[in-house]
Amino acid sequence: MAFDTVPTDALDDFLVLANDLADRARPVSMSYFRQPVPIEIKADESPVTRADRETEEAIRELLAKRVPDHGILGEEHGQEGLDRDLVWVIDPIDGTRAFITGTPLFGTLIALAYRGRPVLGIIDMPALNERFVGAVGRPTLFNGKPVPGPRNVTRLADAQFFTTSPDMFQGADRAAMENLSRDCRFRRFGGDCYNYGLIALGGADIVLERDLKPYDFMSLVPVLEGCGASIVDWAGRPLSITSSGQVLATATTELRDASLPYLDRLEP
Amino acid sequence: MAFDTVPTDALDDFLVLANDLADRARPVSMSYFRQPVPIEIKADESPVTRADRETEEAIRELLAKRVPDHGILGEEHGQEGLDRDLVWVIDPIDGTRAFITGTPLFGTLIALAYRGRPVLGIIDMPALNERFVGAVGRPTLFNGKPVPGPRNVTRLADAQFFTTSPDMFQGADRAAMENLSRDCRFRRFGGDCYNYGLIALGGADIVLERDLKPYDFMSLVPVLEGCGASIVDWAGRPLSITSSGQVLATATTELRDASLPYLDRLEP
Repeated sequence: MAFDTVPTDALDDFLVLANDLADRARPVSMSYFRQPVPIEIKADESPVTRADRETEEAIRELLAKRVPDHGILGEEHGQEGLDRDLVWVIDPIDGTRAFITGTPLFGTLIALAYRGRPVLGIIDMPALNERFVGAVGRPTLFNGKPVPGPRNVTRLADAQFFTTSPDMFQGADRAAMENLSRDCRFRRFGGDCYNYGLIALGGADIVLERDLKPYDFMSLVPVLEGCGASIVDWAGRPLSITSSGQVLATATTELRDASLPYLDRLEP
Repeated sequence: MAFDTVPTDALDDFLVLANDLADRARPVSMSYFRQPVPIEIKADESPVTRADRETEEAIRELLAKRVPDHGILGEEHGQEGLDRDLVWVIDPIDGTRAFITGTPLFGTLIALAYRGRPVLGIIDMPALNERFVGAVGRPTLFNGKPVPGPRNVTRLADAQFFTTSPDMFQGADRAAMENLSRDCRFRRFGGDCYNYGLIALGGADIVLERDLKPYDFMSLVPVLEGCGASIVDWAGRPLSITSSGQVLATATTELRDASLPYLDRLEP
């Protein structure tokens, strides 16, 4: 392709497709939610279920039909055509532990990358019937309407800090998380991808996580940037498909700048 | 009263009333959910909102009208007639931090105690549109139907461990929580009262918490006991309105017996 970013008309089409993908995925994941599901432990010890695989398959089938020339990177079924300009990045069930324990905070994450940069992202919450949709240059939508947007919090002492689990952090990373979160108003654990949606809704102010994969973080970028929030790596750089997966999301750039010194030199 | 427990007819009436209380409370708490709410910090540093107070007021008004001779213990507006045989124990918004951050896992907890022992309990989840109802000698209901019930897990190595936050635990308590949770299949943080509902739904297997107040734990007892799960203090004793608030809830008595040795001598 010859353009430097996705043209508006094409983005419109991709937004329709992305919503269709989320619509297609929902009944598949929900058909397994709170049902007995065979669970396997993957090599990295994360639980994977048939629900994850079938949900991704449903998404891939529709992609193959509608945009066979695009690349795909999915958590469960690997990659295809990553050298193409447009690549869909899919996490069929983010928060598998939430999913397998009947907690409604699991999500389906769908992103479109243009030359490695996220240009479109969906955080879909099937059990909550909630959907966040972001696209470059457009206001983030929550269930079809503009999202309230982040809180105007600029000082750590006023910030509500979220991360999925302290177990995500070890050594110097753990110390940084402890120091940063202790300087915040309070901290709360749990939540997976939903924590990022809570920034867009004006609930959470800081989310700090590490070792995320592209299918965990790519969809978050357009959602957060489209409502004025910030999402960067621990060195303060924009996220791309090759980022390390150390993620700092903040309600404001002031909170980003106040948080980054805690993470200094931790980015690999 | 002259009976040793609540007669069946009276329990029927109280169940109707308890559901009415939860129905009355829902629109009050939901009218403040994801809205800007003035937040104060209480003496114990937990955030309290106008939503908490008004939700409890709505419940108290209906109790005063329907059962003016019963006692009441509420989180926000104190106690009244605790020497009476029948006392309602109310937490208008359990999980205030969840509530003020827009997380849908806050609950309204309603219990009825007979001579200090919980005989009826409701865990109502307004933002999820879910309700758990338990009463002594009756099967626990989830949205009006019998709840699936706990998983038949008997070994810690298979158990899914939940607690709201590691920050709840210090010193020897913290070590006990770490040791117990590390011996489980996995652990997950966050969730507040909903974690107990997840036992009844067959998701969580162990929930360990400390320093709960009667309005935090009394409603949980009939919900869990009515579906065959176990809920005791850290010395393995049944919970009553005078319990210390160290709570161990398990899917099975085997998991209870496997967990209690970790908590030995920690109960005050």
